[in-house]
Amino acid sequence: MSREPAPRPVPVRLTRSERITPEELALAARNHGMPLEALRWAVTPVGLHYLLIHYDIPEVDADSFALAVDGRVARPQRWSLAELTARPARTLTVTMECAGNGRARLLPRALSQPWLLEAVGTAEWTGVPLRPLLEEAGPLDDAVEVVFTGIDVGAEEDGLVEPYQRSLPIAEAMAADVLLAYGINGGPLPPQHGFPLRLVVPGWYGMGNVKWLARVTVVSEPFTGFQNRVSYRFRQTADEPGAPVTRMEPRALMMPPGAPDFFTRRRLLDPGPCELFGRAWSGWAPIAGVEVSVDGAASWHEATLSAEPVSPHAWWSWTWAWDASDPGDYEVCCRARDGSGRIQPSDGAWNLHGFANNGLHRVPVTVR
Amino acid sequence: MSREPAPRPVPVRLTRSERITPEELALAARNHGMPLEALRWAVTPVGLHYLLIHYDIPEVDADSFALAVDGRVARPQRWSLAELTARPARTLTVTMECAGNGRARLLPRALSQPWLLEAVGTAEWTGVPLRPLLEEAGPLDDAVEVVFTGIDVGAEEDGLVEPYQRSLPIAEAMAADVLLAYGINGGPLPPQHGFPLRLVVPGWYGMGNVKWLARVTVVSEPFTGFQNRVSYRFRQTADEPGAPVTRMEPRALMMPPGAPDFFTRRRLLDPGPCELFGRAWSGWAPIAGVEVSVDGAASWHEATLSAEPVSPHAWWSWTWAWDASDPGDYEVCCRARDGSGRIQPSDGAWNLHGFANNGLHRVPVTVR
Repeated sequence: MSREPAPRPVPVRLTRSERITPEELALAARNHGMPLEALRWAVTPVGLHYLLIHYDIPEVDADSFALAVDGRVARPQRWSLAELTARPARTLTVTMECAGNGRARLLPRALSQPWLLEAVGTAEWTGVPLRPLLEEAGPLDDAVEVVFTGIDVGAEEDGLVEPYQRSLPIAEAMAADVLLAYGINGGPLPPQHGFPLRLVVPGWYGMGNVKWLARVTVVSEPFTGFQNRVSYRFRQTADEPGAPVTRMEPRALMMPPGAPDFFTRRRLLDPGPCELFGRAWSGWAPIAGVEVSVDGAASWHEATLSAEPVSPHAWWSWTWAWDASDPGDYEVCCRARDGSGRIQPSDGAWNLHGFANNGLHRVPVTVR
Repeated sequence: MSREPAPRPVPVRLTRSERITPEELALAARNHGMPLEALRWAVTPVGLHYLLIHYDIPEVDADSFALAVDGRVARPQRWSLAELTARPARTLTVTMECAGNGRARLLPRALSQPWLLEAVGTAEWTGVPLRPLLEEAGPLDDAVEVVFTGIDVGAEEDGLVEPYQRSLPIAEAMAADVLLAYGINGGPLPPQHGFPLRLVVPGWYGMGNVKWLARVTVVSEPFTGFQNRVSYRFRQTADEPGAPVTRMEPRALMMPPGAPDFFTRRRLLDPGPCELFGRAWSGWAPIAGVEVSVDGAASWHEATLSAEPVSPHAWWSWTWAWDASDPGDYEVCCRARDGSGRIQPSDGAWNLHGFANNGLHRVPVTVR
């Protein structure tokens, strides 16, 4: 399906309306986030983990499936699923977030999947490490990147029907914990998570975790496919190349306290002590702390962070004892900071495609 | 949590804008439909089945869980999960659709979960039939309805925090195939589908299939809780009582042919023969036929219907061989009719809450 790459326009699809267009709704109806009460689970149950599926979920015959490793390698390889699953397996617990999480909270808003805050999940991925597979193929000295090609096909602005493809720098692809996963949470990979095989790149936003992975191609020039060169870049204007989107910015989310109003999702809480609970993660460094505000980010309180994350690549938990004795309306917020010095901003930095908006989680609560 | 029922206003939350409000988006971000390419599976994989969760997904301790059967019965009962799963099990394959499916395709639009067409799925539910349980409790002669109460709580327009509750007429509750399910697709019920126990009422829209079921109460007066008296009724104005929403209207959906454009979801197709495939169901009677149009419902062709549905309570499949040789833009449509004489209308009938809109599935396709 791949063709000679032609120059492609950078899309500028923005709106200043807070209301969601029919096209965005069509995406929101098929993709889904993790309802935030599911933060209670250290490992997100299957079906609650967020999903962003660019094209269609393909049906793949596991018996005839084979993974190709080719390009700038000394020994091109081809492995059946049975050969891959016969290799030593590894299970990693990984928190994964969509790069577009928070997009719908920015104005002007990039027209794409209109995520609010729920595009995250943590899964136990079981599979084979990528590095030994690449080593068996033997990348040549001029290798700079590895391109991962999915079975799923669709078109972007240029109208070409092509498979989903993303590359990683060779050093990132060779990192010890990059996995080709064929299982999730102790069971087989379901179709929507990339059956029979997907890439898992701990710490990176979801776009690099290519689903329905069929081909791993070592290349000697930076990959210029749509998902690397046009999409998934931080830019302010359509005519700048921008910087690539890579690792997850720090973010804290809370389990909304009390009970919801069905339509507004405002939280209703009885007066009294309320233990706030949430999770926090960063793809750059361990979480260093989480703060909580109950007055709309006017003042902050240090939360109690768990001694460890759920795993080295997964979220931490945090708690804070709120004395919610006084009836009234509150805006409860949380923010995370990590060991690299990054801290969540009050509002996320605007960019053309609406990526990595890690502005605060703000929850309206009525104590009554 | 239940209190004396007070008179409740019927909500009138409508918009004339095609664009989705922030509150609707918040619902769309947490609930999700079945991507329509998943129509290929006779039984929907877990995680792809539609989900509408009114309040929060509760965490339930299966060990201490018990189901109460009470109210107008001779012998109130209480069963642990172990006692229920020790009884003879039954597995039913059931197609379930949200009553609000299609809501976002009506204008003026009721402000609620903004479904397009994807709020459907088919699952293999394993559990215990309800009727023998009710018979052991012994409904009294004055029993008219059975109220099903979930563990999940939230508020509606009146602001009271109450559990989700829905009733069925006693005859419907005693129907042979009404199930209390503790398993789905051969595995345990995941939290979002009602762990550890949910009601399954074949043929009815989803609102009757109460999740996280904790209590079954036989009553001698029609139930006047919010989900029966205010919501889930067909009405044209706020001051009429309206008719109750019950069984699923007929609907056919198709697997969108070709490949999608990511943002517009327009389908791109190579010229040549194209086998269209889809599913159809009705809660009123067996499907009697499906028709296909490739010219925006101007002319219709009879599709080939499967000899049988996937199960007596599940969808049928259909195919139609489209000669898509001529490049151009098409609007491909399908419509179902059932043995009760019901046929899908071109556009669904408007009602105040946007229920049961079974207007045609229309798919823009470009052959090129």
